[in-house]
Amino acid sequence: MSQSTDQAPLKTNRSRLRRSHERGHYDRAAIDQVLAAMPMCHIAYEIDGAPSILPTLQWREGDYVYWHGSAASRALRAMEGKSVCLSVSCLDGYVLARSAMHHSVNFRSVMLFGEAERVEGDHAATSLERMFDALFPGRWETLRPMTDQEFKATWVMRMPITEGAAKIRSGGPKDDEEDYELPIWAGVVPIEMNLMPPIDDAETRLDVPQPDHLSRIKLG
Amino acid sequence: MSQSTDQAPLKTNRSRLRRSHERGHYDRAAIDQVLAAMPMCHIAYEIDGAPSILPTLQWREGDYVYWHGSAASRALRAMEGKSVCLSVSCLDGYVLARSAMHHSVNFRSVMLFGEAERVEGDHAATSLERMFDALFPGRWETLRPMTDQEFKATWVMRMPITEGAAKIRSGGPKDDEEDYELPIWAGVVPIEMNLMPPIDDAETRLDVPQPDHLSRIKLG
Repeated sequence: MSQSTDQAPLKTNRSRLRRSHERGHYDRAAIDQVLAAMPMCHIAYEIDGAPSILPTLQWREGDYVYWHGSAASRALRAMEGKSVCLSVSCLDGYVLARSAMHHSVNFRSVMLFGEAERVEGDHAATSLERMFDALFPGRWETLRPMTDQEFKATWVMRMPITEGAAKIRSGGPKDDEEDYELPIWAGVVPIEMNLMPPIDDAETRLDVPQPDHLSRIKLG
Repeated sequence: MSQSTDQAPLKTNRSRLRRSHERGHYDRAAIDQVLAAMPMCHIAYEIDGAPSILPTLQWREGDYVYWHGSAASRALRAMEGKSVCLSVSCLDGYVLARSAMHHSVNFRSVMLFGEAERVEGDHAATSLERMFDALFPGRWETLRPMTDQEFKATWVMRMPITEGAAKIRSGGPKDDEEDYELPIWAGVVPIEMNLMPPIDDAETRLDVPQPDHLSRIKLG
């Protein structure tokens, strides 16, 4: 599939696919938008002399990206104070071209490089609340409060948003000029990630309705 | 969020949430199912002495996972013959518990460890066709054939499916026993990744309809 960064002029025909092929390095606003769109991230770190990956959830506070896990996590302990790479990717569509070579995907992605740092004490507690604000706004204050034991069992980590970039590809295929005359269908199969209606836990008390804050959960 | 591997007995009440918390290590069939459900993967590798990530598409052929990219890709050149970690993750839902601690996510994931190997010659050409069979079945034979130049510009890589595991979590929250009586809503917000109706490229010839093979593209 094409790795080209060619950019074709935009077209304004709304009934068909707009040709736009923006890629490359973006400003901080683009990075923040992608981080906000997709909480799932993959963090590369080294353990036992080889690269490994931690799939987890991320949230942003100012100029840092945060994640958390069990205090017993080998991954978190291995990455503390070490270089890591955090990647967030939204797969937005398949781009089907007239030749195999120019098939591609539409995506929004962020890649960050830096040192993973453990956050402790009050800062860690506040950050867990910020995670809920990011993922499930309005929910934290409805929950049974966290115990000291639970705080102790939880590690909060972060890395600065200093080195890295956002990359975005959107729009239709970019074929070789001579291929446009071929009788081959080309276009995009969009991909969407959607939240579905909440499902009550079997043990939820019958007098407890679905709370309004469920409607504030966003994705994409 | 909970890292527990507790398993609760299944319930059969279909109108509410089934409690199942399967996690951990699965057999080869589970690995193959997750690989088939989600082509997007993240590959951790080392470059310039630090971990990095390549987000790309994977497909399986027998006991290997394959990916490809530009012959000019620094990432592919850096990982050839080296240890890598390939991760595939499907985010299937948010699991909302009665305490912050037991919030979790439902997911299907695979993590593989091994050495990345470059595939060359006829094997590479055949593998690119297999990639289309996996992603866009029926499309390869409708395309303008790849040129020698295009084959030369494309690297195909693979790693064996020998070391690694699938992990799956599904079902509702698993709260502390004493929290079930609290008047707090708990349940799951499912997440689905869906293919949307194909969009014609603005340059598609008017006499070329959307081909039947578009309906054979699957995800999830």
